[in-house]
Amino acid sequence: MTDGSNAFTRPSGRAPDQLREVRIERGFTRHAEGSVLVSFGGTRVLCTASVENRVPAFLRGKGEGWVTAEYGMLPRATHTRSDREAARGKQGGRTLEIQRLIGRSLRACVDRKLLGERTITLDCDVLQADGGTRTAAITGAYVALVDAINGLVASRAIKLPGGGRSPVFGAVAAVSVGIYRGVPVLDLDYAEDCDCDTDMNVVMNDGGGFIELQGTAEGHAFRRDELAAMTALAEAGIARLVEKQREALAG
Amino acid sequence: MTDGSNAFTRPSGRAPDQLREVRIERGFTRHAEGSVLVSFGGTRVLCTASVENRVPAFLRGKGEGWVTAEYGMLPRATHTRSDREAARGKQGGRTLEIQRLIGRSLRACVDRKLLGERTITLDCDVLQADGGTRTAAITGAYVALVDAINGLVASRAIKLPGGGRSPVFGAVAAVSVGIYRGVPVLDLDYAEDCDCDTDMNVVMNDGGGFIELQGTAEGHAFRRDELAAMTALAEAGIARLVEKQREALAG
Amino acid sequence: MTDGSNAFTRPSGRAPDQLREVRIERGFTRHAEGSVLVSFGGTRVLCTASVENRVPAFLRGKGEGWVTAEYGMLPRATHTRSDREAARGKQGGRTLEIQRLIGRSLRACVDRKLLGERTITLDCDVLQADGGTRTAAITGAYVALVDAINGLVASRAIKLPGGGRSPVFGAVAAVSVGIYRGVPVLDLDYAEDCDCDTDMNVVMNDGGGFIELQGTAEGHAFRRDELAAMTALAEAGIARLVEKQREALAG
Amino acid sequence: MTDGSNAFTRPSGRAPDQLREVRIERGFTRHAEGSVLVSFGGTRVLCTASVENRVPAFLRGKGEGWVTAEYGMLPRATHTRSDREAARGKQGGRTLEIQRLIGRSLRACVDRKLLGERTITLDCDVLQADGGTRTAAITGAYVALVDAINGLVASRAIKLPGGGRSPVFGAVAAVSVGIYRGVPVLDLDYAEDCDCDTDMNVVMNDGGGFIELQGTAEGHAFRRDELAAMTALAEAGIARLVEKQREALAG
Amino acid sequence: MTDGSNAFTRPSGRAPDQLREVRIERGFTRHAEGSVLVSFGGTRVLCTASVENRVPAFLRGKGEGWVTAEYGMLPRATHTRSDREAARGKQGGRTLEIQRLIGRSLRACVDRKLLGERTITLDCDVLQADGGTRTAAITGAYVALVDAINGLVASRAIKLPGGGRSPVFGAVAAVSVGIYRGVPVLDLDYAEDCDCDTDMNVVMNDGGGFIELQGTAEGHAFRRDELAAMTALAEAGIARLVEKQREALAG
Amino acid sequence: MTDGSNAFTRPSGRAPDQLREVRIERGFTRHAEGSVLVSFGGTRVLCTASVENRVPAFLRGKGEGWVTAEYGMLPRATHTRSDREAARGKQGGRTLEIQRLIGRSLRACVDRKLLGERTITLDCDVLQADGGTRTAAITGAYVALVDAINGLVASRAIKLPGGGRSPVFGAVAAVSVGIYRGVPVLDLDYAEDCDCDTDMNVVMNDGGGFIELQGTAEGHAFRRDELAAMTALAEAGIARLVEKQREALAG
Repeated sequence: MTDGSNAFTRPSGRAPDQLREVRIERGFTRHAEGSVLVSFGGTRVLCTASVENRVPAFLRGKGEGWVTAEYGMLPRATHTRSDREAARGKQGGRTLEIQRLIGRSLRACVDRKLLGERTITLDCDVLQADGGTRTAAITGAYVALVDAINGLVASRAIKLPGGGRSPVFGAVAAVSVGIYRGVPVLDLDYAEDCDCDTDMNVVMNDGGGFIELQGTAEGHAFRRDELAAMTALAEAGIARLVEKQREALAG
Repeated sequence: MTDGSNAFTRPSGRAPDQLREVRIERGFTRHAEGSVLVSFGGTRVLCTASVENRVPAFLRGKGEGWVTAEYGMLPRATHTRSDREAARGKQGGRTLEIQRLIGRSLRACVDRKLLGERTITLDCDVLQADGGTRTAAITGAYVALVDAINGLVASRAIKLPGGGRSPVFGAVAAVSVGIYRGVPVLDLDYAEDCDCDTDMNVVMNDGGGFIELQGTAEGHAFRRDELAAMTALAEAGIARLVEKQREALAG
Repeated sequence: MTDGSNAFTRPSGRAPDQLREVRIERGFTRHAEGSVLVSFGGTRVLCTASVENRVPAFLRGKGEGWVTAEYGMLPRATHTRSDREAARGKQGGRTLEIQRLIGRSLRACVDRKLLGERTITLDCDVLQADGGTRTAAITGAYVALVDAINGLVASRAIKLPGGGRSPVFGAVAAVSVGIYRGVPVLDLDYAEDCDCDTDMNVVMNDGGGFIELQGTAEGHAFRRDELAAMTALAEAGIARLVEKQREALAG
Repeated sequence: MTDGSNAFTRPSGRAPDQLREVRIERGFTRHAEGSVLVSFGGTRVLCTASVENRVPAFLRGKGEGWVTAEYGMLPRATHTRSDREAARGKQGGRTLEIQRLIGRSLRACVDRKLLGERTITLDCDVLQADGGTRTAAITGAYVALVDAINGLVASRAIKLPGGGRSPVFGAVAAVSVGIYRGVPVLDLDYAEDCDCDTDMNVVMNDGGGFIELQGTAEGHAFRRDELAAMTALAEAGIARLVEKQREALAG
Repeated sequence: MTDGSNAFTRPSGRAPDQLREVRIERGFTRHAEGSVLVSFGGTRVLCTASVENRVPAFLRGKGEGWVTAEYGMLPRATHTRSDREAARGKQGGRTLEIQRLIGRSLRACVDRKLLGERTITLDCDVLQADGGTRTAAITGAYVALVDAINGLVASRAIKLPGGGRSPVFGAVAAVSVGIYRGVPVLDLDYAEDCDCDTDMNVVMNDGGGFIELQGTAEGHAFRRDELAAMTALAEAGIARLVEKQREALAG
Repeated sequence: MTDGSNAFTRPSGRAPDQLREVRIERGFTRHAEGSVLVSFGGTRVLCTASVENRVPAFLRGKGEGWVTAEYGMLPRATHTRSDREAARGKQGGRTLEIQRLIGRSLRACVDRKLLGERTITLDCDVLQADGGTRTAAITGAYVALVDAINGLVASRAIKLPGGGRSPVFGAVAAVSVGIYRGVPVLDLDYAEDCDCDTDMNVVMNDGGGFIELQGTAEGHAFRRDELAAMTALAEAGIARLVEKQREALAG
């Protein structure tokens, strides 16, 4: 138990409101319409965007597209080897939960009418895990998605309306926040994640609106003021992540 | 779009901060150590608590117990029949996500050392669905859990320490909140759930602490003030649900 | 070992030819076209009938309908908790056997040409088990089926031929019989089921014809006279069950 | 519709109470402790008995053995090719139902205490199907079972008690009966099976006791007198099958 | 360890370049368009060819046919009973590998344009195993395939072009070779297979061309001269197998 | 058809006996005991070696270790997206075949007695595919395996015998060869792989011995001289790959 003041140190030595080093590397692999290796410190996720000219059965003939995600973790992305889900014959609950979250988050910034009858699948595969894989995945997948849609626009597969508005509106990024030893902190790494009282994943757009908020009390229940402190940290962190996304897309 | 004032009406005619009629019926079935039929309006969930004298492999020999949950929906609990998960050969992502949520929520009020090397499984099966099945399930499962643990205490299978403190500390209940036609509302039913901008499930304890918070923007991203309004509604609603739980347990 | 005369008592105190209390409660849930909670003593099964305007592939374009059943047991319907089949990833042999039996039994009273290209699925979910779940399920599912088909007729989705003959002809009900401590008895409960020499499930129509007969010698092989005694008991029992069905449908 | 008298002919030209040609060939394959190819006319089933020195979990340490069965049909045992169950990833309901029937039937003639902590698995694989595969399987599996147990006795793995009583008591055989064009007939072949009103599988022991009786009305419900006629045919047929088993075992 | 000269003996007493007794029995079962029981000594495989008037999705509308294979092993084909793949719920890696090999091998001798939009499935089920099941399967499946295609030609379902060239060109057969105790040997039986240094399966056509070659060093890596010796043995063995196939087809 | 002389060109412009650029990057991820990113031109495979202090059931108590492999392909490693095997619920035949090949190949250079009761799992995940993924995987996995075993030796978890001989003896590498437009070529890329007559994967050790040889005629059957030409190419290519492995391990 700490007093949260000067005695407090994070395992990584970061300040409470400090992100890990974030890198967004476009074009990491060659075949996908968008391919991004995103790193939040030691967490590295390969995010690819694949375009297919078909939609799921429930959307056929409706003139709209679909954006979905799949998530996987290489067996030895983690400290100890975990089973390969393909070998076990099913995806675990955590995997399904995360890929549903990624899909919902990215759909929040796409005009599916403008996309047309196409599916964009965002595959997020964790090469190395050190906490925060889902938030890194969302942040990176956004960039892969923009690359894929820009490609469709450039090739005139998608024809934009008068004002040239892209099917992607705004930006979406995500970060975790938590209460670690009594102190609200931004962007938890694995050491903090294992030992924190509350863990919250926040997805926001570049206008400061919340898209997803998932908080879990691990040890003690969190209070309203702690919630406010965490969402403020997240808001500031996501603003910086959106900036990183812009730099990457401009690069 | 509404102004949220006098023009606003919920499909059910309820006030924005009004719960549906809540009923908690103990002893609904005979074999389980706890068996509760909980209704939040038209949503009816059978919650049973089963005690087994074994723990999962990762806890063996550690002197603590485990609390876990499984969730199911009868195929025709819903407006149109959905596939039986047992026949399809797997539980869907939504099911896994919900049962993980129920398990985490209930573990938050159990002292697993005092429970001893036992597993309590909370089976939450939806007989009829009208929105809010997961929050009804958590609220009802808490009562089934208390019944099961009281049974262990009464039979002296669990011996309490000096002060007589039960392995269950505090109460846990859950409710959904959302933004429906621009207005924050409590305890969404199916008609509202299909047509709202934001949907948030909140799990709290009787001390007003947050245990889980899962918010999703369906249409537009929600702002900080909307988050505050929703959590305030949830806080009031959960206080009333905790009261209902107490009445049921006293009955 | 008993002599089968005056010393003989059933665990429940019933006479050898006495049914348990039978209750048939229509409209137990709201969404299904037919919804019946049937009780044979402590055995309670929720039977819903769902109508869908499509048929399995092998019937497409043939102008006939289909009637099928699915059976499930809630994990804690029984004395000790059994695994959830959805979680195990498959339905067991017993489940498949029972749902095939229910489906065949109900198809025996439906004119599938008159039904038209529709499927009626009878979901039979055991909320509480005390022996005889499959016979209760058949008896209750018949009532749910009639309700669903009457709804189709009332809404003129099905147009009846000249004489107004319904797609349902006759009634179908089921009961178990057995040899318990040397004495043929009707409608075995769980205590008898665990300890009997022979267990037979009988499905009959209201004309006294056999639709299904499944007898199993648990301890010693049964003789021809025992078979005759058991089928006579079943015949009388089913006549009373058909009466109960009529009362419920008239109610 | 026929009058059942002189105009009546079975597709095979057999008399109503006539079995098909039955052949029981021991030692068909080399590795199993018992290996029998049984033919009922064009139906040919390979039945092997495998002995293993272990029992299922529910019997461990109880000093008794277990007898179980598995059933399969080669994909092209039938007129048109059916899917390979191993490729589809699960055994169908019919398969599970049949193998449960075979297992129960054979357990009815084994003293599991004398067998000791061993499992005998009867694998019944249909090489060619022409109706009645389950009854041929039971009839053949009995012979394979006796061979396997005689081998255990001969090698003194099983030590018999004073009187030398074998762990196998009596004989078990099975046959189908039905109502074909109004006439009760014995041992239905595929042509009859597709076109009959009632189909009943009967398993009996050599003392004339019923072990299993499974009758299904395909077209119209059967009456009590038809049941009596069918069981009488079965009784006579099984007596002849038991004779065939004795000859094979003596051969 | 042997010197490979006169002291050398194979467990079966065969010469190094001697095949086991090979028998090819056509028409073993009745329903399939081709049905062959092939024996390589104690290895017996039932190979059926089934014709269906449809092709897999990837070939639809292309005017060509497909040839594919499935492989299975009866649970007690082997010394000790192995699990039934249908019961385990999946085919093992070895099974999939073998059936892919059989399919590729047989496709190598079929003109799929001439076959037309049909699928021929070769089911190879091992009734008794004593080494070399996959090579026996390929050798026997070829004969079943020819029977099936000859049937299509005879019934004029396939109309041959001017010269009357059959959709089957050439013959395909397979044999194993290996290094056993330092000596290259032909057609390994189980005793040799368990104890050899190298095991190679060779599929060739009647023109002496290689279709598949799969060699595995079990103990020590094999040298180029050993490879040459093994392929020479295989070439001679396959020539004799092709002769056996011709005799069977002529018989 | 080409004459294989001056008119011949490979899609990549390489000489027939020329490998693609090979890169072996150790320490690509942080948690695994060995982690190698291997590239054969555009084919990039992440190979990790994980050490666990347990062995499969069939080896328990025998004092030896185990080396095994798993193989996966990220969904968008390829030109068009393929299904995620974890989502489909099973690994395909090709995947199982490849991972069995990798496992056998690497076991060929490990003294499992010296390894002790440990399992080393080689996970080979294809990040980008351009032909030859299995040969790149074997070549890279060898380096990861050596790193993992050297770690065990360095930490004295494995104590070497007198002479200091490592549990890894020799080196293992793999390459594909084929007949492309009539010319034997080394190390096929995807463009060649799709359009070649024969494709052969060769695994050898550093002593020039064959460990695995898997050749498939895609178009026409290959002759003995073509086999010789291909194995000679492979031998030279593997010598160069072994040199690359040495450089990487020395680096």
